[in-house]
Amino acid sequence: MRTNTHRNNKKKIINDPVYGFISIPDEFIFDLVEHPFFQRLRRIKQLGMTHLVYPGALHTRFHHAIGAMHLMSQAVAVIRRKGHEITEDEERAVLVAILLHDIGHGPFSHALEYDIVKNVSHEQISYYFIQALKLDFPDNSDDLERALMIFANKYHKTFLYQLVSSQLDMDRLDYLTRDSFFTGVSEGIVGTERIIEMLNVHNDQLVIDEKGIYSIEKFLVARRVMYWQVYLHKTVVSGEFMLINILRRAKKLIREGQTLFGSPALLYFMEKDIQKVDFETKPEVLQTFAQLDDFDVMGAVKVWQNHPDKVLSILSRNLVDRNLHKVEIAKEPFSPDRILMEKELVRTQYQLDDEEIDYFVYSEQLTNNAYSQVKQTINLLKKDGQTIDVSKASDNLNISALAQPVEKYCLCYPVVRH
Amino acid sequence: MRTNTHRNNKKKIINDPVYGFISIPDEFIFDLVEHPFFQRLRRIKQLGMTHLVYPGALHTRFHHAIGAMHLMSQAVAVIRRKGHEITEDEERAVLVAILLHDIGHGPFSHALEYDIVKNVSHEQISYYFIQALKLDFPDNSDDLERALMIFANKYHKTFLYQLVSSQLDMDRLDYLTRDSFFTGVSEGIVGTERIIEMLNVHNDQLVIDEKGIYSIEKFLVARRVMYWQVYLHKTVVSGEFMLINILRRAKKLIREGQTLFGSPALLYFMEKDIQKVDFETKPEVLQTFAQLDDFDVMGAVKVWQNHPDKVLSILSRNLVDRNLHKVEIAKEPFSPDRILMEKELVRTQYQLDDEEIDYFVYSEQLTNNAYSQVKQTINLLKKDGQTIDVSKASDNLNISALAQPVEKYCLCYPVVRH
Amino acid sequence: MRTNTHRNNKKKIINDPVYGFISIPDEFIFDLVEHPFFQRLRRIKQLGMTHLVYPGALHTRFHHAIGAMHLMSQAVAVIRRKGHEITEDEERAVLVAILLHDIGHGPFSHALEYDIVKNVSHEQISYYFIQALKLDFPDNSDDLERALMIFANKYHKTFLYQLVSSQLDMDRLDYLTRDSFFTGVSEGIVGTERIIEMLNVHNDQLVIDEKGIYSIEKFLVARRVMYWQVYLHKTVVSGEFMLINILRRAKKLIREGQTLFGSPALLYFMEKDIQKVDFETKPEVLQTFAQLDDFDVMGAVKVWQNHPDKVLSILSRNLVDRNLHKVEIAKEPFSPDRILMEKELVRTQYQLDDEEIDYFVYSEQLTNNAYSQVKQTINLLKKDGQTIDVSKASDNLNISALAQPVEKYCLCYPVVRH
Amino acid sequence: MRTNTHRNNKKKIINDPVYGFISIPDEFIFDLVEHPFFQRLRRIKQLGMTHLVYPGALHTRFHHAIGAMHLMSQAVAVIRRKGHEITEDEERAVLVAILLHDIGHGPFSHALEYDIVKNVSHEQISYYFIQALKLDFPDNSDDLERALMIFANKYHKTFLYQLVSSQLDMDRLDYLTRDSFFTGVSEGIVGTERIIEMLNVHNDQLVIDEKGIYSIEKFLVARRVMYWQVYLHKTVVSGEFMLINILRRAKKLIREGQTLFGSPALLYFMEKDIQKVDFETKPEVLQTFAQLDDFDVMGAVKVWQNHPDKVLSILSRNLVDRNLHKVEIAKEPFSPDRILMEKELVRTQYQLDDEEIDYFVYSEQLTNNAYSQVKQTINLLKKDGQTIDVSKASDNLNISALAQPVEKYCLCYPVVRH
Repeated sequence: MRTNTHRNNKKKIINDPVYGFISIPDEFIFDLVEHPFFQRLRRIKQLGMTHLVYPGALHTRFHHAIGAMHLMSQAVAVIRRKGHEITEDEERAVLVAILLHDIGHGPFSHALEYDIVKNVSHEQISYYFIQALKLDFPDNSDDLERALMIFANKYHKTFLYQLVSSQLDMDRLDYLTRDSFFTGVSEGIVGTERIIEMLNVHNDQLVIDEKGIYSIEKFLVARRVMYWQVYLHKTVVSGEFMLINILRRAKKLIREGQTLFGSPALLYFMEKDIQKVDFETKPEVLQTFAQLDDFDVMGAVKVWQNHPDKVLSILSRNLVDRNLHKVEIAKEPFSPDRILMEKELVRTQYQLDDEEIDYFVYSEQLTNNAYSQVKQTINLLKKDGQTIDVSKASDNLNISALAQPVEKYCLCYPVVRH
Repeated sequence: MRTNTHRNNKKKIINDPVYGFISIPDEFIFDLVEHPFFQRLRRIKQLGMTHLVYPGALHTRFHHAIGAMHLMSQAVAVIRRKGHEITEDEERAVLVAILLHDIGHGPFSHALEYDIVKNVSHEQISYYFIQALKLDFPDNSDDLERALMIFANKYHKTFLYQLVSSQLDMDRLDYLTRDSFFTGVSEGIVGTERIIEMLNVHNDQLVIDEKGIYSIEKFLVARRVMYWQVYLHKTVVSGEFMLINILRRAKKLIREGQTLFGSPALLYFMEKDIQKVDFETKPEVLQTFAQLDDFDVMGAVKVWQNHPDKVLSILSRNLVDRNLHKVEIAKEPFSPDRILMEKELVRTQYQLDDEEIDYFVYSEQLTNNAYSQVKQTINLLKKDGQTIDVSKASDNLNISALAQPVEKYCLCYPVVRH
Repeated sequence: MRTNTHRNNKKKIINDPVYGFISIPDEFIFDLVEHPFFQRLRRIKQLGMTHLVYPGALHTRFHHAIGAMHLMSQAVAVIRRKGHEITEDEERAVLVAILLHDIGHGPFSHALEYDIVKNVSHEQISYYFIQALKLDFPDNSDDLERALMIFANKYHKTFLYQLVSSQLDMDRLDYLTRDSFFTGVSEGIVGTERIIEMLNVHNDQLVIDEKGIYSIEKFLVARRVMYWQVYLHKTVVSGEFMLINILRRAKKLIREGQTLFGSPALLYFMEKDIQKVDFETKPEVLQTFAQLDDFDVMGAVKVWQNHPDKVLSILSRNLVDRNLHKVEIAKEPFSPDRILMEKELVRTQYQLDDEEIDYFVYSEQLTNNAYSQVKQTINLLKKDGQTIDVSKASDNLNISALAQPVEKYCLCYPVVRH
Repeated sequence: MRTNTHRNNKKKIINDPVYGFISIPDEFIFDLVEHPFFQRLRRIKQLGMTHLVYPGALHTRFHHAIGAMHLMSQAVAVIRRKGHEITEDEERAVLVAILLHDIGHGPFSHALEYDIVKNVSHEQISYYFIQALKLDFPDNSDDLERALMIFANKYHKTFLYQLVSSQLDMDRLDYLTRDSFFTGVSEGIVGTERIIEMLNVHNDQLVIDEKGIYSIEKFLVARRVMYWQVYLHKTVVSGEFMLINILRRAKKLIREGQTLFGSPALLYFMEKDIQKVDFETKPEVLQTFAQLDDFDVMGAVKVWQNHPDKVLSILSRNLVDRNLHKVEIAKEPFSPDRILMEKELVRTQYQLDDEEIDYFVYSEQLTNNAYSQVKQTINLLKKDGQTIDVSKASDNLNISALAQPVEKYCLCYPVVRH
């Protein structure tokens, strides 16, 4: 049961270093923001371990969701101004949809999705959260249901879905802008204002006015820059793999019966194999998941530095002290011989057995398709009313090349002391 | 024992959204930055609870210390260019001094100083850390000793001390700029570049070239704006008082023998009354302090939401869910009657006894002198070689009024449900 | 007679490096912007000679007027949101009023007002322009008349007048922000967004919500910084006085019958003594004034470098080549002896007679009241509905001191060659 | 003969809204900046008519040259830090070279090059200016000669030439950044700081450290965005073609013996056919060219609005009042029939004869190769010491496509009134 104390503390305007002031347009949206499920996003960093490389990158999923909602307000105004109807109810629903689009993310989900909760995607958990919110906001269950329909592309106006999830959705516009801002990587800056100004609707599809083509080219390249310079920066990747291995080791030890320090919520998910059916049948699962955030994970890793298990303690100490393991990146897979050689060097150094060495030396495949998902094209609206795929309209940029996922391979290992 | 793995991962340039690129000028300074004592500052937010009001304010003491060092490099270059000698050794020492000036801060020390470690100031703990660093860096113990002397104003060039600690030190220049940037409160922006350009030395005192007077006026007003709009924003104050009371309650329960969740490091300081002598005689004290950061505190508060003690659980839940208690601010103390009235309302609501009610309803005095400490004046250097106190040179701004600490009173209480 | 060709080239959105995109909200306002009277402001720099010191300060009165209109749109939205009625007609009128508030300015009017057209203020000329616009826009003469009433504080809603002209009008908010931006003097940055957000109306007076007090303090200090660091920067003052003396000399020579290069429009005003009655009875006067801009003035000064008159050519060459005369500034008037001494030095150097020397050596009084005109107070609206003068509410800032015009004295003279 | 009065007014630091403070590093460079030849660049806008579309784009070639020099200082520091020698003399020479690289530009030279001075390029005129400067600075003629050698790629260190003129020279880095800043087209922002940080030298060639590849991709795309969104924006093109035709018409009338208003310097170049040989044999040619700037051109066009020649007056009035002619852009040439049709419509409207109509209706070819001149590749320096052409290293961006000049066709005509 929630108290209403916050009601007396309403703050309709949020300071954002990125956009200036953000107004919260609506009482219900304000209440959603105040709900503990949403407040929890204040404790989940948008970029996980990225702050180890870019120390300003501490911004949260809370701030991102608010920012994406702000851009959505602007997009709705532009599209209406161009003569396309968006009703009041639809506006509220699409704002709710973008606000809650990431509510199912767990801590460090960039790295840990499927490590904490196997087989249940964050989109699925977002769905469970929104269902649960209907119980807390019975007067607004229609709004939430409409948001869910938009979210799932079941609403009859497709362009509303595309504003939430497409090549040019408000989610991407905000995260590229926000991630650029807080990392300080100015190459990632996207002209959100101009892109939004160019949005239009044609045959129920979100399109871009033709003269916006250069802004779109810039957007695609900026996204690519951010991808390699930030999202898959090799030091970031190193930290994330170390965290994955720490959690994997901890889970193994716990299931072998060892005692590990950890918050009740973290231990709950470490001990159990939670499946979709558990979320759907046991309310405690979602309630416990709602307790999880960055503090549970890093709070435990810090204590595990002193655990008697050598693998757990070394990895934890190296991550906490930022003695990050080395990462090499190559376009071709690393040879088994090379991997074996690194394993032998590390094994001698740390006195590890065969099973333990795999937590320290490993090769993985990296791909940028998490960020390019080219399920949809971006269409330009020409003055004569025709639309054309941007990859055909762009005379210079090889957009079809941009669209293909790039695969690279990495080899990770701790540096051996001399 | 530290491994040297990080050596292979040297990154001499740090991205900073505030200043762009920051170069680390020196191998030893790089090694200090890599040391776990300093890396720990990555996990301590500069502004504690302020992000509850300004969601971008998640920047850390790590980033601030690096930024202040960056400004110090610029200040050294300007002062040298104006003909004043600063040797290589002195430059390194003053950079080390500013880099380490806050290393003794604990988590949320804005609120919790003297709650976690009674009777030992963060300056004192910085001293202990620097002494300990001498053991890890025997080749640079002269540098560290020289930094300590500057820090303590025992070095023969006073102006070096003033660059580290005075009305216009690099610490303040960075934190005002950085805090403005991340909160998005543009009124706090200070022209650091221009102020540093105006720095000069006269009779071994740090002074400002006369034509910089308007920049100084602006700096003093910006500081004041930040003070009331950010540092003592009443919602921030509310969060901080709630955290203080949560820790106070937890400490009481622990000392009564109850079991509370918490990291070993946090429990260590909750259980014991650590004094200066303990830091000086038991190495484990500093080592354990070095484990403490924001994760220990908030990680525990999150779990305490479910503790059977009513005071602890309500306060913890209200803080975590951001149901912050109401704060009223007034120029005069609140009357005992008014305070009593609020206590009665809350007592009935929550069914609290006399001792418990004090954790919920209280009145405190606020003062801005933490930020204005006018121990020293700012002197302007006139073209004729005379110096003059800025408060006398400014014909319009009532700087002497600015200098007086302002005292206000606050009354805090949870809002009663209807 | 105007053609309508521009109609096919409508551009409703203007790029502004200061605010991003500015939308022109209304067809009539778009047409006003396109009118030659308004387009002329593209050729009049906002800050006259200031670019000699701050080379970025080339922005025009056109851009400023558009920017002020943009802020006015935001202010209208905020005030409406707080429950105060502003009708569609009133909105259009107040936008027109701010857009046209400076349309009567001539080139370099900061320096040359009353030199080009004696005895007729730029406000008066704005009035003549607006009357003339009624003839070109007969369908909108009501809008223009309403704008004139607001402009003259004859409209029944006083707060609309105050948005156009008061201590906190949109004119000042824009010019401080814009002048800071283009000069690069970051100390002049004003939080326009926050100040506008704090605007309110009480008893038909424009007021500021109480919590905006720190923003107002900052605004007042920023204005002061800009005043001394930019508007009355002594090198700027030097350039402006040189220009005044060049024009004075040219007018004298012309009236003595000498032939000088110049555009017909410039020569028209140099030859004649235009009075108010001329504007009111001869349409050619306003039409010729509408031809005048920075190009007429500097285009002539450039050619005058080679005029046989020694005074005119030396002053013109020194201004064009930026060999600016020296300016000393003091709080007390310069003694007649000192002035005489400088005159003698210069007289010998340049071989000048008694009348000529006054164009080179002179002392003037400077005052900042052009920028502080404290005819009105800024009132804060407290939560209890009372208002209070900001100079009484501010506990620290000596705002009453800020309000007093500061008088200084300058002495100008060319530096004598060795 | 120049006076030395400015010597007493030295200002070693220039405020730049783009980079903050710019220090002038050297007395000789300061003196060059003060020279009338360089001061003249204060009166030549970098982007000619672009301010008709982007009203902030009033920045001058003066500011650009200072900015490019600032970036050059940073580049020299980075390259030295990476172990490549640049002597003091070479540093001064390369700074002088970049500072003076554009000194030969005339007013609106983007449009008017070869209209004002036929057959003599601005590079050639820069050469004449630098030769003339040797006479004014005999003590520094070596510096100027060395700058000329770098400028002409005759100096033995090729990379110095490439810093001044190549795909990645400091000229481009500054103009893209500065033009983006003042137009407000954020898509053109280039990470100058990061690109400069990545500069290196290999086998006497300027190269980019391999990890800078994404910044280079971004730079190439940003340049392209600026090209179509700003430099060849069709409204800008329209204004430029109108100006070209105005000057062409004026020159024709003057050579037919008609009297036109104009400054002596402008009329000098309108009346004569100046050739290289004239610059080389008659000092008055360069001296007169040094008098020309934007004021001469626009000052005359303004007066020509009232000239009896119909073509001259209509074109001038349309340009001054911003009744810009319509421009259509297509990938294929416009058909003769279409052009003829537009001519007939305009002929009837304006009552023009066959020769006159060509000033109003015309088709031209546009090409972006002025901005891409792919004479040189950009090479990346790999960690193994090999270099690779960026167009081969980039796996996604079709850089070879970017490198090809794009040709488009435009058709210009005034809109006919209804």
